Amino acid sequence: MPARGDHDARRRDVSQAVWEVLAAKGFGGLTLRAVAAQLGASTGLLTHYFPSKKALMRHALEVAHEHGQRRERPVAEGEGLPGLRAALLHVMPLDPEIAAMNRVWVSFWDAALGDDELAAAELRRYERWRGMLRPHVEAAVRLGQLPADADPDDVVAGAAGFAHGLVVQALFDPARFPPRRQIKLVDDFVALLAR
Amino acid sequence: MPARGDHDARRRDVSQAVWEVLAAKGFGGLTLRAVAAQLGASTGLLTHYFPSKKALMRHALEVAHEHGQRRERPVAEGEGLPGLRAALLHVMPLDPEIAAMNRVWVSFWDAALGDDELAAAELRRYERWRGMLRPHVEAAVRLGQLPADADPDDVVAGAAGFAHGLVVQALFDPARFPPRRQIKLVDDFVALLAR
Repeated sequence: MPARGDHDARRRDVSQAVWEVLAAKGFGGLTLRAVAAQLGASTGLLTHYFPSKKALMRHALEVAHEHGQRRERPVAEGEGLPGLRAALLHVMPLDPEIAAMNRVWVSFWDAALGDDELAAAELRRYERWRGMLRPHVEAAVRLGQLPADADPDDVVAGAAGFAHGLVVQALFDPARFPPRRQIKLVDDFVALLAR
Repeated sequence: MPARGDHDARRRDVSQAVWEVLAAKGFGGLTLRAVAAQLGASTGLLTHYFPSKKALMRHALEVAHEHGQRRERPVAEGEGLPGLRAALLHVMPLDPEIAAMNRVWVSFWDAALGDDELAAAELRRYERWRGMLRPHVEAAVRLGQLPADADPDDVVAGAAGFAHGLVVQALFDPARFPPRRQIKLVDDFVALLAR
């Protein structure tokens, strides 16, 4: 069925063009026109895939999510706090690929704050991410690496916040936040928790 | 000189309309058309004030900065860590006015990541904010509230990151991050530093 294959290949090309626009311009710069230019196609062709800006945004959200999922999960050297450390480092812009991904997600905050559906998607994304950090914090409490009365939800929210706030600073100021310093700051934070 | 007064009053109206668009739609939604609609004026009139999108963005940046400056600086009950705590709480979305301001600045990250001039402005804004946190951290080291070998720059970067990451979570999930919990999380963070 060559027609089917062509269709799938074209869809992949469209998704790749969406990703390239996202990586270069963020969600704020994502338009049918920009994707068409990236693809070397007409805006008319694009409306076949995306009848509205909203449809384009929805697809871009999937594309960005898939790019994140494709990365290998970090393997920590130990349970509890070492696992939390690895999960936090996993989101830091330590190389250009992750920096591009961070840039996309930071830009999504603006789009999401202005749209109820996208805001709900971002809320779920946060829940998912905090849900990934939580087992490490619970293990840390169980293993006595954190005080027995530590509230796992609060530790998780604080750790998630710490990492994202550092991501933003590093994106704007890579000279002052080279990978080595990002790693040190995450290590310092985990060490604070452990004291 | 009534003409002069009219002119100034009109400029204030324009600046107020720019702020209202920013607060409602963020930098991503800031267009001449949106400001004109907010002002009940024609887009043509607006081009008299802002010959380009860039000129509008520059003015919006000033307007947002002035709104921040207008807020009273927090007075801490003590030097060092209490001062750091007050400065961090000062930026948390504890009421609708600060939430609106946070929403504007988070949206600015997207605009700034796609524009060298705006990115440089955001870098300076971060330097300024970290510069405001630094004296509190230095006082905390001097007063023995922090270990003598603590690196003030790293403590400041971590605290700035922690606060901004919490701001983003609270903006998207006010139900899970009511003011009381935001305050507790900041208190927990400062207590960690102090241990």
